[in-house]
Amino acid sequence: MKALIFDKELKFIDNFPTPSPLPGEALIRIKVAGICNTDIEITKGYMGFKGIPGHEFVGIVEKINNNDQSLLGKRVVGEINCACKKTECEYCQKGLGRHCPNRTTLGISGRNGCFGEYITLPIENLLEVPDNIPDNIAVLTEPLAAGFEILEQVMISEKDEVLIVGDGKLGLLINHALSTTGAKITHVGKHADKLELVKANRGQTFMLDDMPKKQFDIVIEATGSISGFNFSMSHTKPRGTLVLKSTIASSQKIDMTPVVVNEITIVGSRCGLFKPALDYLSSGVDLNPLIQAIYPIDNGLEGFEKAKIKGSLKVLIVF
Amino acid sequence: MKALIFDKELKFIDNFPTPSPLPGEALIRIKVAGICNTDIEITKGYMGFKGIPGHEFVGIVEKINNNDQSLLGKRVVGEINCACKKTECEYCQKGLGRHCPNRTTLGISGRNGCFGEYITLPIENLLEVPDNIPDNIAVLTEPLAAGFEILEQVMISEKDEVLIVGDGKLGLLINHALSTTGAKITHVGKHADKLELVKANRGQTFMLDDMPKKQFDIVIEATGSISGFNFSMSHTKPRGTLVLKSTIASSQKIDMTPVVVNEITIVGSRCGLFKPALDYLSSGVDLNPLIQAIYPIDNGLEGFEKAKIKGSLKVLIVF
Repeated sequence: MKALIFDKELKFIDNFPTPSPLPGEALIRIKVAGICNTDIEITKGYMGFKGIPGHEFVGIVEKINNNDQSLLGKRVVGEINCACKKTECEYCQKGLGRHCPNRTTLGISGRNGCFGEYITLPIENLLEVPDNIPDNIAVLTEPLAAGFEILEQVMISEKDEVLIVGDGKLGLLINHALSTTGAKITHVGKHADKLELVKANRGQTFMLDDMPKKQFDIVIEATGSISGFNFSMSHTKPRGTLVLKSTIASSQKIDMTPVVVNEITIVGSRCGLFKPALDYLSSGVDLNPLIQAIYPIDNGLEGFEKAKIKGSLKVLIVF
Repeated sequence: MKALIFDKELKFIDNFPTPSPLPGEALIRIKVAGICNTDIEITKGYMGFKGIPGHEFVGIVEKINNNDQSLLGKRVVGEINCACKKTECEYCQKGLGRHCPNRTTLGISGRNGCFGEYITLPIENLLEVPDNIPDNIAVLTEPLAAGFEILEQVMISEKDEVLIVGDGKLGLLINHALSTTGAKITHVGKHADKLELVKANRGQTFMLDDMPKKQFDIVIEATGSISGFNFSMSHTKPRGTLVLKSTIASSQKIDMTPVVVNEITIVGSRCGLFKPALDYLSSGVDLNPLIQAIYPIDNGLEGFEKAKIKGSLKVLIVF
C-alpha cells in the first residue's frame, strides 16, 4: 500500500505491506488524514518513533477480526490510544486507557499510523461518523476532542472568564469546544485573519499587542512556546487555573515562583474522548475555514512541507 | 526598641521607634519569633523588602486601637497577610485576603515584621493561643498552617498514596499536617536523623538513594530545588497531583512535557489558615525536636547565621 514512512527521514513508498487485524481489531481504509504538529515533531525525532506516523483520520471499516461485525462497511473515526485492558492495570480499570502505561498510540508509539492506505485499531476505539459530517470535517474529530478534554478536567461555568492564548489550529478548535460552556471567552493571538475565524463564537478577540492588562479565572496555553507560557501565567488570576494544551519544545527556563505565590493550578491536558467532539461537529458548525490545503497521498511529502510553514492551518492528506 | 533591620545588610539596632497601632490594629509585644527560609531570601534581596523582616511569632497584645478590647493581654499568633477589605476587592469579598492585590505582608511586603520587640497587626488577623501550647511550639503555627493549606486546596482521602519530597522543616511540618488525613504517607529525604522525627506519624520514610521506583497519586515538593522538582514530577502518577510548596530559586530549566503527556495537575500552595494548625498543636503533639536553637534578640544576627547553615531545623529568636 502507499504510505509516508519515517526512519531518519520521511519518505513516500508504494509497496508497504497492508496490515492484518489481530483478534478484536478492525482493518480500516483511510479516506482522509490530518497532519498535526506532533507528526512534524516526530519527523524531528520526537518519541523516537519509526514507521508510519499519523493519528487523525476518517476511514471505512473493511474487515473485522471479531464475532461482532456491526461496524463493517461503516465510516468511522478512532481514538488513538490502544490500552492493555488487563484487570491488573489501574488505568484501564479506571476507564483511563489513555494513560495505560502499556498502551500503544496510533502513529506515535508502537503502532503504525494513518499516513498509509490502511490501519488496524481495536474495534472499541472506533466511532461511527454521522452522515451529515463530511470527511474533511470528520477528520478534525481528534484535535477537537483534545479541546473538549479541557471540559473533562476543569469545571468551566458561565461565570468564568476564560482566556485562550494562541490562534493556531489547536487554539481555534479549543475556542469551538469552550464555546459550548457559555463562559465568557477572550482569545488572543498574532494573526487577525485567524482570530476572525472564531469571532462568531461567544466572546472577544485581541491581537497580542492590543491585549488589555487583565487576569482571568482560567487561561488555556495553546502556543507551545515559552513566551506563550509566560504570557499565560501572567494573565492567570491568583488561585486561577492555567491549562497547558501544548508541550513546550525541550527544556526551557521557567520561573515557577508565581505558581506558588499566587497558588495557581496548572493542568496538563492531552487527548480527549471523541463523543462530545463528534456531537459538536454533527451540530452543523462550519469548520472548513480551518483547512489550509489538501494533498493526495502520492504528494504527501509536499503536504508535510506545507504543514511545517509557520501559521499554516490544517493540512489534509486524501487517499 | 530592639530589632533586626534589613537595608542592603541585616543589622541589630536598639533604638527603633516602637510602632503605634492604626484604627482596627493591635500592638503586640513579641515573645518568640521563628526564622524562615523566606527571611533568609529577603536578606539576599527577595521582594526588595527593606525594614524589619520576620513573620512567625507568638506575643502578647498590649494595646488595641478599637472599641473591642477582648484580646487585650492575651497571648496570640497572627496571620501575616493584611488585606485591603474593600468592597470592590474581588479577593477580599471571596474571603481570600491572602491574595488581595493591595495587601501588605508582615515582614515581607509593606509592613515591618516580628524580628523587633513590637509589631502591629489588624485585630482580625489574631488568634488566641490555647494555654497548653508553649511559646516555642506556638511560634510554629505559621509554617504548620502552610502545611495545612494543602488540605484546603487538594482533596486527600485515606485511599490516596502521598509522597512528601524533602526533609527540611517545611517538609516535616507538612508530614504532621498530612498525617491528619489518614492517607498513606511516604516521606523521602537526605537526612536519616530528620526522617526519624516523622517516623512516628502514619506512613514510611526513605533515604533518597533507597527510594523504590513508584508513582504516587499526590506528591508534595518541599525542597525548593530543581532536582527535587524533577524527582517529584517523575514520581507523580499520570492524572496525579504535584503540590509545589516551595518557590524554586530563580528561573530554572524545566521540562514541562510530562505535565501535558501525563495530564498532571500542579498546585501552587503558600500560606494557610491558622485555625487547623493551632488545633493540631493543641492536641499535644511534641514538635520540640524540630527546634534547632534559640537565640536572644541581642544575638539575633548569629541566629540568622545558624539558620543559614544547610540542614538547620527551626531557629528561634526570643525577646
